[in-house]
Amino acid sequence: MASEWILTLTAQTPTNIAVIKYWGKRDESLILPVNDSISVTLDPGHLCTTTTVAVSPAFEQDRMWLNGKEISLSGDRFQSCLREIRARATDVENKEKGIKISKKDWEKLHLHISSFNNFPTAAGLASSAAGLACLVFSLGKLMNVQEDHSQLSAIARQGSGSACRSLYGGFVKWIMGKEENGSDSLAVQLADEKHWDELVIIIAVVSSRQKETSSTSGMRESVETSLLLQHRAKEVVPKRILKMEEAIQNRDFASFAALACADSNQFHAVCLDTSPPIFYMNDTSHRIINCVEKWNRSEEAPQVAYTFDAGPNAVLIARNRKAASLLIQRLLYYFPPNPETDMNSYVLGDKSILKDAGIQGIDDVEALPPPPEIKDKIPAQKNRGEVSYFICTRPGRGPVVLSDESQALIDPKTGLPK
Amino acid sequence: MASEWILTLTAQTPTNIAVIKYWGKRDESLILPVNDSISVTLDPGHLCTTTTVAVSPAFEQDRMWLNGKEISLSGDRFQSCLREIRARATDVENKEKGIKISKKDWEKLHLHISSFNNFPTAAGLASSAAGLACLVFSLGKLMNVQEDHSQLSAIARQGSGSACRSLYGGFVKWIMGKEENGSDSLAVQLADEKHWDELVIIIAVVSSRQKETSSTSGMRESVETSLLLQHRAKEVVPKRILKMEEAIQNRDFASFAALACADSNQFHAVCLDTSPPIFYMNDTSHRIINCVEKWNRSEEAPQVAYTFDAGPNAVLIARNRKAASLLIQRLLYYFPPNPETDMNSYVLGDKSILKDAGIQGIDDVEALPPPPEIKDKIPAQKNRGEVSYFICTRPGRGPVVLSDESQALIDPKTGLPK
Repeated sequence: MASEWILTLTAQTPTNIAVIKYWGKRDESLILPVNDSISVTLDPGHLCTTTTVAVSPAFEQDRMWLNGKEISLSGDRFQSCLREIRARATDVENKEKGIKISKKDWEKLHLHISSFNNFPTAAGLASSAAGLACLVFSLGKLMNVQEDHSQLSAIARQGSGSACRSLYGGFVKWIMGKEENGSDSLAVQLADEKHWDELVIIIAVVSSRQKETSSTSGMRESVETSLLLQHRAKEVVPKRILKMEEAIQNRDFASFAALACADSNQFHAVCLDTSPPIFYMNDTSHRIINCVEKWNRSEEAPQVAYTFDAGPNAVLIARNRKAASLLIQRLLYYFPPNPETDMNSYVLGDKSILKDAGIQGIDDVEALPPPPEIKDKIPAQKNRGEVSYFICTRPGRGPVVLSDESQALIDPKTGLPK
Repeated sequence: MASEWILTLTAQTPTNIAVIKYWGKRDESLILPVNDSISVTLDPGHLCTTTTVAVSPAFEQDRMWLNGKEISLSGDRFQSCLREIRARATDVENKEKGIKISKKDWEKLHLHISSFNNFPTAAGLASSAAGLACLVFSLGKLMNVQEDHSQLSAIARQGSGSACRSLYGGFVKWIMGKEENGSDSLAVQLADEKHWDELVIIIAVVSSRQKETSSTSGMRESVETSLLLQHRAKEVVPKRILKMEEAIQNRDFASFAALACADSNQFHAVCLDTSPPIFYMNDTSHRIINCVEKWNRSEEAPQVAYTFDAGPNAVLIARNRKAASLLIQRLLYYFPPNPETDMNSYVLGDKSILKDAGIQGIDDVEALPPPPEIKDKIPAQKNRGEVSYFICTRPGRGPVVLSDESQALIDPKTGLPK
């Protein structure tokens, strides 16, 4: 091996949103959950992490940059992932560059990792799930790891529980597993993103002045103090998992929506049953739920499912494009932007939904009529400024290697972030 | 019997606040609960219903006025109470007025009832509990009903479940009972108000623009849809009831507070687990909880317990006067009144707590330093205008007959509200 070479690999990994929730670990260090969970993978075109991993005999230590800023890799979770991946590395040969790395070399070689989220990291949009999944996936590819995505997911799980579900596109189940060592706690794909491609997802990023409890400490406190959590994990979730798998298999939106909404609410109920209680949803979240519930109940069948993770943001899943355009009208009616906001920065992602809804500019928002389901004499309250922005997206694919070198985040000559 | 006489009786009945919550009926029409509950009776000096009941052969029908406005008595719940009380009426003789009513006369005689709450009826302060209890208690006295308070409580229960707990002062348990006819679903006194007279209660009446789900329909929906409610009722509450009885017996504030807070939160968790979800607490309620939790955790032992009924108002129970004055300082620091608010209309009830806290006017509120438990660098948020007013009170006595005729709400000559 020459000492000047640098080998890089770039990959892109999606975020995911759970529709049957993961809340509570039975093993803190291995990150083994108290119940199965099911998620929808989000289109990486709108929400994803891109990671470039680089290896070189010139690197003196493992280093990582997130969104251009160096971060520490010393945490147990990063170290678990790096150790597990290194243990599975195999011989790598790059004939073009004249590089040969043998299985045993990987223990000595250091890595540079640069990761970038195409969405705000702190906005509560599962950036750690996409990030850890991308770290494991890209290292697996770089090191020619032979394990399949499910086995990689069990490694990603040790970095961030829900990261394991980002190893697949479409609809994914994280099986809690039974083994003490966690080897069978991994993700499987229930169906790919093409199986149910009518669905449209709108995320409302809710303004919040509250400092939120981290999900790691929150779920620890729930396991320790909630008297409802074990009942949920043992009695409620197993039945819901079966029903949700069936709903996804049959593209049965009514069941899908009922299960997703009920499970999101139950997860937040367990948070509230924690001592001290954890509040992730705020009044805006509640208003979004009320808007969706009222509309769904005015229709013959549910049009939209909602689900909330460990924060106030709403993830709204519309049954199809038509429902999505009616949804964005309602959302913009109840949650108009602050004056002088550019619509282009208020509705992000797939803007064709906005076009379908007949909304081009702020004037169209102000002209929206009240939704027909408001039959009260009381005029509907407008909640200007309570939503920071919306992202229109859809179920999406799993991780991919980006072969276009221009997308790499590390300079192949210096080994440092571009 | 001469036809011109009118016989009246006036009584006063307190409200109560549950510290182990009632949520869910096993029988809708008899109002039989799915679990026992425990409450603290509030001092009627600050929160009570006064009711005058009048009977006269001149009255042509049963009529009722609430806060001076005539209301219908045709509802099943009123009718149940009136029927049950009439069935237990006995001979009445008023020698002074020369009136004799025999047991059988009561079936034919009509009643005029006038009821007045000394607190805002719509503010979510258990006005129906005090109101129904007062109706049953005053009619029982008027009709010389021989049954004791527990047996009267079983009648009041059929008017409004939690009303049964307003038949006693101090600390009261509503035993769910086992009988199908509800005869053993009644209230008993655990201890009177003198048993633990250190406690001070501060109620924060929270401003809300939300229309709330009524507790009657809310608990019906919870019973039908929550998958956590039965587990709570069967597994969690029975143990808590025993522990709460013990805490009250021993005046063990740490246990009392832990149980009351956890049970309030679990009741709201069950509401959230209902489909569609029910939100009674709002962001202000959450902020009050966070304030109390933070303070309690900064002290060696809890200083304050919180509990929330079917609305955003906080009922805060301080371990003693010292804790209450520190609490009102914190509450006024975080929730100062709007400008131009008179402190006399912002803190109602027992104003000596305010004096203990060294607060005379609005200037003293503005000069309050941040509570010492705020150690973050981030300055604490002020939430001006989020609380409408505070009421300072304490545990109080049960129903009493008011013999002073000037307190009667019905004119003994006209038989109509004064």
